[in-house]
Amino acid sequence: MNDDLKYEVLKANLILDELGLVIFTWGNVSAVDRRTGQVVIKPSGVPYDSMHVDDLVVVDMDGKTIAGSYKPSSDLATHLEIYKHFEACSAVVHTHSRMATAWAQAGIDLPAYGTTHADYFYGAIPCTRPLTTGEIKGAYEYETGKVIAETFTDRNLDPMAMPAVLVCNHGPFTWGKSPTDAVNNTIVLEEIAAMAYSSRLINPQLTPMPAELLDKHYLRKHGANAYYGQR
Amino acid sequence: MNDDLKYEVLKANLILDELGLVIFTWGNVSAVDRRTGQVVIKPSGVPYDSMHVDDLVVVDMDGKTIAGSYKPSSDLATHLEIYKHFEACSAVVHTHSRMATAWAQAGIDLPAYGTTHADYFYGAIPCTRPLTTGEIKGAYEYETGKVIAETFTDRNLDPMAMPAVLVCNHGPFTWGKSPTDAVNNTIVLEEIAAMAYSSRLINPQLTPMPAELLDKHYLRKHGANAYYGQR
Amino acid sequence: MNDDLKYEVLKANLILDELGLVIFTWGNVSAVDRRTGQVVIKPSGVPYDSMHVDDLVVVDMDGKTIAGSYKPSSDLATHLEIYKHFEACSAVVHTHSRMATAWAQAGIDLPAYGTTHADYFYGAIPCTRPLTTGEIKGAYEYETGKVIAETFTDRNLDPMAMPAVLVCNHGPFTWGKSPTDAVNNTIVLEEIAAMAYSSRLINPQLTPMPAELLDKHYLRKHGANAYYGQR
Amino acid sequence: MNDDLKYEVLKANLILDELGLVIFTWGNVSAVDRRTGQVVIKPSGVPYDSMHVDDLVVVDMDGKTIAGSYKPSSDLATHLEIYKHFEACSAVVHTHSRMATAWAQAGIDLPAYGTTHADYFYGAIPCTRPLTTGEIKGAYEYETGKVIAETFTDRNLDPMAMPAVLVCNHGPFTWGKSPTDAVNNTIVLEEIAAMAYSSRLINPQLTPMPAELLDKHYLRKHGANAYYGQR
Repeated sequence: MNDDLKYEVLKANLILDELGLVIFTWGNVSAVDRRTGQVVIKPSGVPYDSMHVDDLVVVDMDGKTIAGSYKPSSDLATHLEIYKHFEACSAVVHTHSRMATAWAQAGIDLPAYGTTHADYFYGAIPCTRPLTTGEIKGAYEYETGKVIAETFTDRNLDPMAMPAVLVCNHGPFTWGKSPTDAVNNTIVLEEIAAMAYSSRLINPQLTPMPAELLDKHYLRKHGANAYYGQR
Repeated sequence: MNDDLKYEVLKANLILDELGLVIFTWGNVSAVDRRTGQVVIKPSGVPYDSMHVDDLVVVDMDGKTIAGSYKPSSDLATHLEIYKHFEACSAVVHTHSRMATAWAQAGIDLPAYGTTHADYFYGAIPCTRPLTTGEIKGAYEYETGKVIAETFTDRNLDPMAMPAVLVCNHGPFTWGKSPTDAVNNTIVLEEIAAMAYSSRLINPQLTPMPAELLDKHYLRKHGANAYYGQR
Repeated sequence: MNDDLKYEVLKANLILDELGLVIFTWGNVSAVDRRTGQVVIKPSGVPYDSMHVDDLVVVDMDGKTIAGSYKPSSDLATHLEIYKHFEACSAVVHTHSRMATAWAQAGIDLPAYGTTHADYFYGAIPCTRPLTTGEIKGAYEYETGKVIAETFTDRNLDPMAMPAVLVCNHGPFTWGKSPTDAVNNTIVLEEIAAMAYSSRLINPQLTPMPAELLDKHYLRKHGANAYYGQR
Repeated sequence: MNDDLKYEVLKANLILDELGLVIFTWGNVSAVDRRTGQVVIKPSGVPYDSMHVDDLVVVDMDGKTIAGSYKPSSDLATHLEIYKHFEACSAVVHTHSRMATAWAQAGIDLPAYGTTHADYFYGAIPCTRPLTTGEIKGAYEYETGKVIAETFTDRNLDPMAMPAVLVCNHGPFTWGKSPTDAVNNTIVLEEIAAMAYSSRLINPQLTPMPAELLDKHYLRKHGANAYYGQR
């Protein structure tokens, strides 16, 4: 496993803590090396302030530990399912950040109300269906990953144009092309969750933004004709 | 009284201040040494920034001072009742943290809406009934403790699976196996109080999370078959 | 004018800034020396970070400048009216702190919902009636002070048991026995304004706390039989 | 282009970042030198923490680059339209600050509920109409500026007495006599957006403040008879 990738995963975990997006050890970042199929992930329940790069756990795509003496994050199986189904994604972040979790607990898609949202996410952030009793009592973390994948399949969503999901009664997962990219999507998700919350309370009849404006902003930053930034 | 325990109680009091969970001297932490029945508690109205370990007050289970020159926290009698009724608990924290207090003032149980809650608290955080006029005019702090115990008895709650209560029109008490554990429960309670508040405003028809999911998350971290963290 | 009092007023002004209770120069603290009838107040529109004790303005009870080269705060006449009507009060604070101002803008008394409130304020924080057109077009700041006094007279409120008011469509004034005491009342007012806001949204049918509990908590900290703190 | 003006624009961009009014590179400040018609603006997508004064881009009023190797902010055309239509304005700020954006997303004018608002803005902050599909698909940033100008023309608003606008489904633009002045208007807008939000939730029947009080406070700080501050 590439040391650079491990360092980027460590750094991404620490940024979540610094930005107040996680409390205690309530978040985890992983990354996959698509050439080797190896995944590096935060250890379970180890405090951020003493976390060292060698504390990270390297596993294969079946979750078998290849390197590291700690147990991997208990959410590992969810991360692995995301990597299996969303082939363009290279890193996954899970948090219980306050406002995104409030929407996940409310069990409602987070509507696209404005351009802040549209600059990063191409439509409403989907909220999964609740897990069934069987899924909860079975291989719970694996089933969580499967329900995420099902949500994207059923709604015909492109995971790289919608790099976030709200797991019902649980919280957000985000992903991206790199750990930094996935963490940035977490930061934006928390901000738009807060904005949408307030917009909705100001105007209870609020409807989503016009599709043309969503297209304009998303495509201004993404895709072949993007013109935002120094390209 | 063990010096280590006094230092842990001092540190726990200071953490509440650092995290913004108390303003002025609005919080107090105590711990009991179950072998001797001695309780160490914050002095009343002494500022955190000048508080020294020897300022803490050591009392017996009847509230009689054994060591320390200050008066103990005015909430001492509530702490003592909690120790008497909840025998597995070794430390108690009281704060007026903003969002938990908002729920206590609203006089409503804090529903379990998601896994963040379920990871620490096995069901809705109970809100006590209001105290009667007689209880308020009598031994108020002692009666507060009795109403907390009554709430747990009447609802058949295990205080170690539900280490928090909202005292109606007042604020939260939490407890745990140690001062650190009790403070951690305070931190989590404040966070889930904020999340539940927002979830409820997003979706006024919101119902609690499924019982199976509550079981899954609580038991994933607690009890014989726990598998979260490095065990 | 006593230098100690001037330093305490300077310090009180700076604390408001540090705690985020004022933005720019939107707050002002004054104090009166009751022996001489001299009032020291923040200058108008001078930034906190460069404010020096000699920048404070000393005036008599008619507002005539005795010492200082700056113009006094434009709210001076309101402060003077408060000193004239509330004879036990020695310091006044005015801010536009966010949550207290939100209630003042809403034009509604801030109800006593819990013991945090009752520990400092003996009942609902009164919101004044709107000023009349004549009052606004006349000696506006003086009339603001008169409406504050009228509110307390009409409702038969003791200003030392209720050391705060919400001026309708404007914001809070607090006072106390010293600049530190008045600033502490500002800090508490902002916190209980936030708590009451959330309590009200959680439970729209919420009624004020029982009168007995209000009595108990207020009198536990104030008056002849107080037993909170090291007395 | 005057170096002092460039430094003030750089500093204004950095203040937005320090105050948490922008995340990542989501804000931009520009200024115009009215003698030469040259505009200096933040480069597109360059992080604040490494931004140097020479990274700023100088353009003419048609948007043609005069100095600087980076691409200008993608919102340049909106800034230019504001300069063309609002001739007394010398600097423009755009952010996605949380509470102002929440109102913009809600598509509602931000009502003047109190004196904090009235001290800076002479009436409700207007929210533009939504852009048409043609405007979105056309020269989008230019059309955004035109809709801002149209809003002020149609409502007969003086842009120097109302130095802010909410672009529907997007976010706020503010302006002023200098970069510092325009940034100050951004800071105040965010604060009054938060206050008005809470006031409205406390009192859903709330109506705007009386016109006389709006006049009084606005004119106390602005115009020929102002008496606030050290003038």
